[in-house]
Amino acid sequence: MSILVVGSVALDTIETPFAKREDALGGSAMYFSIGASFFSDVRLVGVVGTDFPEDAIALLRKHNVDITGLQQVEGKTFRWSGRYHMDMNRRDTLDTQLNVLEEFSPVIPDTYQSTDFLFLANIHPTLQLDVLSQVPEPEYVITDTMNLWIDTTLDDLWKVIKQTDIMLMSDSEIRQLTGETNLLIAGKQLLEKGPGYVIIKKGEHGAMLVDAEGVFFAPGFPVEDIVDPTGAGDVFAAGLVGYLDKVGAVTDKTLRQAVIYGSTLASFNVEDFSLDRLKTLTMGEIKERYRMFKQITQFESE
Amino acid sequence: MSILVVGSVALDTIETPFAKREDALGGSAMYFSIGASFFSDVRLVGVVGTDFPEDAIALLRKHNVDITGLQQVEGKTFRWSGRYHMDMNRRDTLDTQLNVLEEFSPVIPDTYQSTDFLFLANIHPTLQLDVLSQVPEPEYVITDTMNLWIDTTLDDLWKVIKQTDIMLMSDSEIRQLTGETNLLIAGKQLLEKGPGYVIIKKGEHGAMLVDAEGVFFAPGFPVEDIVDPTGAGDVFAAGLVGYLDKVGAVTDKTLRQAVIYGSTLASFNVEDFSLDRLKTLTMGEIKERYRMFKQITQFESE
Repeated sequence: MSILVVGSVALDTIETPFAKREDALGGSAMYFSIGASFFSDVRLVGVVGTDFPEDAIALLRKHNVDITGLQQVEGKTFRWSGRYHMDMNRRDTLDTQLNVLEEFSPVIPDTYQSTDFLFLANIHPTLQLDVLSQVPEPEYVITDTMNLWIDTTLDDLWKVIKQTDIMLMSDSEIRQLTGETNLLIAGKQLLEKGPGYVIIKKGEHGAMLVDAEGVFFAPGFPVEDIVDPTGAGDVFAAGLVGYLDKVGAVTDKTLRQAVIYGSTLASFNVEDFSLDRLKTLTMGEIKERYRMFKQITQFESE
Repeated sequence: MSILVVGSVALDTIETPFAKREDALGGSAMYFSIGASFFSDVRLVGVVGTDFPEDAIALLRKHNVDITGLQQVEGKTFRWSGRYHMDMNRRDTLDTQLNVLEEFSPVIPDTYQSTDFLFLANIHPTLQLDVLSQVPEPEYVITDTMNLWIDTTLDDLWKVIKQTDIMLMSDSEIRQLTGETNLLIAGKQLLEKGPGYVIIKKGEHGAMLVDAEGVFFAPGFPVEDIVDPTGAGDVFAAGLVGYLDKVGAVTDKTLRQAVIYGSTLASFNVEDFSLDRLKTLTMGEIKERYRMFKQITQFESE
């Protein structure tokens, strides 16, 4: 099986109350590719500038990410800069420089044509639609988005959602999109618009899966020392889609497991800046934390 | 086994975005007594005025609540009035009239002396200390509180906490008390102050148990139509303490189950105004929802 991801590749400048990093490796497709590589083969579609560091390319190669579809063009790589509040839950965007992303036109290489899982990472919905038109009948389409596109590009976002099998949204995004406060009702409303599965990301409060069979809750893993929350949502998606591609089936059962793998991977990612924790992560550590998720949620029948 | 509860008995005026109720039965000890009565025998200590309705007394009697310790004195019953926001999570207190609660001095009847579980419901910490001094060696002390006492009566609150076995706090309360944002760290800090168990109530996000053996997460049950959140925390405590008293043992295992019973009972309580849902609730419904909690949290090992 294989996963195709389209999204941003970025150099991030991140400030937390405790530290600062400049030009750290980031972007939704970058976080996703490295994360999903623990489970399956990943093919990346994106764009970087001539300033994109060699060791980032080396990192992708080391994780067996196929970068045939990663365009390198004249100009500077997309840059994002943000500052986290004291509680590490909220952040302010300080600066966004689209650079080479502004003129980006995704091209799906011929070698990417047979794709099982297409992950549309957070990127402009027009680009997501462009990719959907180029990939002939992927088995599953998984989509992520952000509040900016709900504000500015809602019509195109709805077109993407209609073609989506598994929709990922944060709690605030789905409330904004549906106008409904109750997350279960909001999730059910979105199920009527196309997706067979809706996954609501609730940050420290975990994630919630809504599908025809009901609802499933995963807590956020209690990380005591959160260093950098950047990319947590992308890495959650990476564990989720990576595991689904590995088992090759999407059911209520595999999706529950996939939500736990996503939560597991995201909980590691926040333990260090940028992709640093994923660089040293092992499959053994992932499986151990998966088992800990069982331990922190299980209770006996009466 | 038996439970002794001290707390407020009130007549509440509640406004939600959808409806309003005046002089509805409420108060922390009232909600707790009716809730815990599904599991065990409850002895109530509190005070009401001469305006306290006959049918409320009849309701307590119907639920086998021992009201020997419920003083009825000249004057008006404690009144609280609040208005919920559109999201039903936040509320503003519109009015508080202490009335007979102002001069309340709890007296523990002789027949209450042998108490296994002492629940100090949300009431002034000085009154909680007064009760602690009157009840000789209860097996377990479970304490609830509110932000007001953290603001105004912190020294006495700490004295209560030191004598507490199971401490119940909301997420915002424990963050305020410890000055620590991370709930796991905050919970561990409180464990060092006396309690063997800390339970953090997170509203729609469920509850979290922190003890020497680790941590346990229960989601909030997804109620689609929340009518009135008043008393949810008291009824959570009722399911928790009621179940513990019923099984007669406090361990990590029974506390996990007790957290689920608390969450179950609270999820019913919000389905109607005041105590109305508890009036029709059956043990069969409680057990069915307990099983649903398993269904919405379980996932398979890989």
